[in-house]
Amino acid sequence: MVVSTINGTSPLSHSNGTTIPLSTFSRNSFVIVEKGDPVAFRPYWEKVKDECTVEIKGDEWMSYLGDTNNLCWYMVPQMRDAILRLHNVVGNAVTKDKFLVLGTGSSQLYQALLYALSPSESSHRPINVVAAAPYYSEYKDATDILQSRLFQWTGDAALYDKDEPYIEVVTSPNNPDGTLRVPVVNSGVEGKIIYDLAYYWPQYTPITDQLDHDVMVFTFSKCTGHAGSRIGWAFVKDIEVAKKMIRFVQLNSIGVSRESQIRAAKMIGVICDGYKNLKSIESDHLFFDYSKRLMKERWEKFKGAIEKSKVFTLTKYPTSYCHFNKDLSEQYPAFAWLKCLEGIKDGESYLEKLKIRTRGGGRFGVDAKYVRVSMIGTEDEFIELCTRLSNAKRE
Amino acid sequence: MVVSTINGTSPLSHSNGTTIPLSTFSRNSFVIVEKGDPVAFRPYWEKVKDECTVEIKGDEWMSYLGDTNNLCWYMVPQMRDAILRLHNVVGNAVTKDKFLVLGTGSSQLYQALLYALSPSESSHRPINVVAAAPYYSEYKDATDILQSRLFQWTGDAALYDKDEPYIEVVTSPNNPDGTLRVPVVNSGVEGKIIYDLAYYWPQYTPITDQLDHDVMVFTFSKCTGHAGSRIGWAFVKDIEVAKKMIRFVQLNSIGVSRESQIRAAKMIGVICDGYKNLKSIESDHLFFDYSKRLMKERWEKFKGAIEKSKVFTLTKYPTSYCHFNKDLSEQYPAFAWLKCLEGIKDGESYLEKLKIRTRGGGRFGVDAKYVRVSMIGTEDEFIELCTRLSNAKRE
Repeated sequence: MVVSTINGTSPLSHSNGTTIPLSTFSRNSFVIVEKGDPVAFRPYWEKVKDECTVEIKGDEWMSYLGDTNNLCWYMVPQMRDAILRLHNVVGNAVTKDKFLVLGTGSSQLYQALLYALSPSESSHRPINVVAAAPYYSEYKDATDILQSRLFQWTGDAALYDKDEPYIEVVTSPNNPDGTLRVPVVNSGVEGKIIYDLAYYWPQYTPITDQLDHDVMVFTFSKCTGHAGSRIGWAFVKDIEVAKKMIRFVQLNSIGVSRESQIRAAKMIGVICDGYKNLKSIESDHLFFDYSKRLMKERWEKFKGAIEKSKVFTLTKYPTSYCHFNKDLSEQYPAFAWLKCLEGIKDGESYLEKLKIRTRGGGRFGVDAKYVRVSMIGTEDEFIELCTRLSNAKRE
Repeated sequence: MVVSTINGTSPLSHSNGTTIPLSTFSRNSFVIVEKGDPVAFRPYWEKVKDECTVEIKGDEWMSYLGDTNNLCWYMVPQMRDAILRLHNVVGNAVTKDKFLVLGTGSSQLYQALLYALSPSESSHRPINVVAAAPYYSEYKDATDILQSRLFQWTGDAALYDKDEPYIEVVTSPNNPDGTLRVPVVNSGVEGKIIYDLAYYWPQYTPITDQLDHDVMVFTFSKCTGHAGSRIGWAFVKDIEVAKKMIRFVQLNSIGVSRESQIRAAKMIGVICDGYKNLKSIESDHLFFDYSKRLMKERWEKFKGAIEKSKVFTLTKYPTSYCHFNKDLSEQYPAFAWLKCLEGIKDGESYLEKLKIRTRGGGRFGVDAKYVRVSMIGTEDEFIELCTRLSNAKRE
């Protein structure tokens, strides 16, 4: 039974007696958890919206140039300072002795990195780009869209056995399955590693280490939930790699929106100020405390729904010590990675019948019995998702 | 003699008796007119800065999505409406029956268009990309940076004689030389045209026609001077081309900064409101009237300096009827295109000795005796440029 209402003027009573909040979902409307639009954290930003307000006057931030003293000339000093401060507060990355390269989201930096890490001599064959399956569904298309002679998508890193140079993308925590990852290619030849750390923030995972890799990519979208701003950044050890990335961003978009930089710097400042004034602030006003609690609550609710359904199994995550929260903690990934039990061959199609739109395993380089489900949509959508999942029955 | 002052506390008297305004340039500092940072219009935006103020609260514009009802799903309705309104006011392009695709500046749209206009079957050779010399100095690198198998830079459109499909980029008014242009390839095979109309705004050129081409690209940077916002847009007739462009922008940067869109929409609204309330507003508060007057004054001053120097010649521009201003008008391009007289083989090096940094003809596919000079920098820089140029002597 799908518990929902078309116009929903009052909370509904579930068949098991619990009261679930108002839903705007009708029986026929889809719960769309296929993408990862991180709007779950909006209620936090509603609470602090006024302290986060940014005002930009008509004559401000007109130039292409952000800071001519910085290698990354389109980045304004406020943005640079905010990013460094954030990593200092969270302790998830070593920023010292690295170059900071700003991008229009981490997608642009991914392409900039493929360009920067590829051998530029035209005599070379395209360098192989691999990631361990299940891998982020957009890597393949983002790599191959322009059919570059510099690089090519080669698929699952675990199967890579060529005697050729390669770039391995290590997404940790991983999208789609939330696992913490290390490189897996075991090849005799030189490999370059891109660490995609989009989800290495305290609401999703214990911060187990202050990572110190040669190439680390982060995104504002999944950190604070401001996906519309299109702000990403990379820490890069090698100045030549940084220079090539900046050249790519120059030719690709002549830099990164100044308005987004100013706003992202402001939001990050509000987060960091909270942790600076730790003692005088309610924990509900601390962003990572709030967002971790939200993710934890969602995961507990979600696990309950999955158990009831008896149709799926979930990835198991270890408990680790979080240096940021100073306690033992589980992982609460931005996506749930479901495996259908025997009898259901195509999870995406199965869930489509339940009016739940997900992304199937095939898109992530694995079997169709897997599906990815966003855990970071609206509360309304999430509750409806749990309701529908808990009513799933084996065919 | 270079007339300038280090700290310049008062205007200086020029040797010919005219008083020139205060300059912060020292004798040894460079006048950098190599790039086209459009900061010349900032004084206008200072005047109206308060009516243009944009305020963004912490919980606004968080989603990746701008308008799920629009093919260009990352574009917010305010941005779309503002762009359509602007073209309606200026009358420089037919927007009816076309798809509007937003980009992170027009650079991203250039790459999106190369992707969208190339044959996608891998059996094809890369399509040839050409532009008549002198052409915009970044086209070559922007085309070839990833060594795509889909397209390749082939150089001067006037020399193109292959029996193969091609894309011709028609920049009008042209960067670097300001001329109004039409396609020049005369080939028996199918060609596709990208109209780069970055400078087709009333401050630079009479608006002679309401253009109605299949692919027309515009940028906010050169229209209002807000280069830092990274907003560009394209009108595209073919829905399949539009879809491929949007797919490119999705993989490249998952859309365009929401903050920039909101701000650009606001600025455009202020410009359009001015022309709507034409009778109750001073002409100094009408953006295109203000900016055209500024460009005209600069060009008059600049021509005077060039005449005095007897070292360069300037491109001649026709006078045409402007449908926007409803009068006959000259062109006032964003760049001056100088040709050195006999005896000076390398204009860029010659001007470098005068402490004027320019971009030489070689970068634009023509002889080194040409140089491009920005006319849209700060007033201070522009005046110093004229002073140094007017003192140039033949070697």
